[in-house]
Amino acid sequence: MASNPACLFCRIIKREIPSKVLFETEHSLAFLDIEPLSEGHTVVIPKHHAQFLHELPDAAMADLLPTAKKVALAIGCKEYNILQNNGRLAHQAIDHVHFHVIPKPSAEEGLTMEWKVQKTDGDKLEELRKRILKL
Amino acid sequence: MASNPACLFCRIIKREIPSKVLFETEHSLAFLDIEPLSEGHTVVIPKHHAQFLHELPDAAMADLLPTAKKVALAIGCKEYNILQNNGRLAHQAIDHVHFHVIPKPSAEEGLTMEWKVQKTDGDKLEELRKRILKL
Repeated sequence: MASNPACLFCRIIKREIPSKVLFETEHSLAFLDIEPLSEGHTVVIPKHHAQFLHELPDAAMADLLPTAKKVALAIGCKEYNILQNNGRLAHQAIDHVHFHVIPKPSAEEGLTMEWKVQKTDGDKLEELRKRILKL
Repeated sequence: MASNPACLFCRIIKREIPSKVLFETEHSLAFLDIEPLSEGHTVVIPKHHAQFLHELPDAAMADLLPTAKKVALAIGCKEYNILQNNGRLAHQAIDHVHFHVIPKPSAEEGLTMEWKVQKTDGDKLEELRKRILKL
C-alpha cells in the first residue's frame, strides 16, 4: 500500500499524529475534522496514498463509501454533503484523497455553495459525449 | 434491486427517459448532467433506488467511485470536485442518490463554495467522538 512519510494523513493513519478516530477498516480511516464546517464533520480517507481520486486503485476505494455511510448513521445527521476535492482550485488542502462527510443542520452551518448552471442543449451534450468517449 | 417508477433517475436507468450515457456497469450509470456547472459535469448513480447514501446497501455502492474515477479520466480534467448531496437543505434536487463529478477548470466555473470553519478544540472533539460512538 502506497504511503508518503511527509503526508499528514499518512502519518495520522500510522498514529504518528493523533486524531479523533471514529472508524477504521482494512482500507480506510474515518476521523473528526479539526476544522469542522458543522458538528460531526468527519474525514474518510483511503489508507493508500494518492493525491487525486483518479490515481487511486479501485481496490483502495472499496470501503470508502460504506465507511462514509457508517459515519452518517453514527452521527445521526438527516441532511449532509459528501465532498471530495481534487486540486487547489477545487479546494483540496491536503494532498491525500479524502472524503468530507459534512452534516447540514441549517442553511448557515455545514457546506454552503453556489450552483451556477451553464447553458447547454441536447446537441451540444451529444457532441461532448462523443468527444469524451472518442467516438 | 430497488426501483421507483416515479423516479427520474430510475426512468433514465431503464431508458424510459433519454440521457447522454458515458459509462454503465452492473451497479451504476454515468451520464452528462443537463444542467452542468462546467463542461463535462457528469452524474454517477447507483442502479438501486435510495434517496440517501445511508439508505443504500453497501453492495450497491461497490462501483460508484471506480466509475467516478473512469469519468474523471475520460473527461481529462485535472481538477474537479466529487459531490453527493443528501436532503433539500444540502442541495439534493432529485431523490435518488447521485454523485456529481464537476470539473473545475477555473475559479468561476464548476463548484463554488464557502468554507466557514467553526471553532473547536481537542477536548470538545473527544467529547463529541465519545458521544457519536456512545462510549
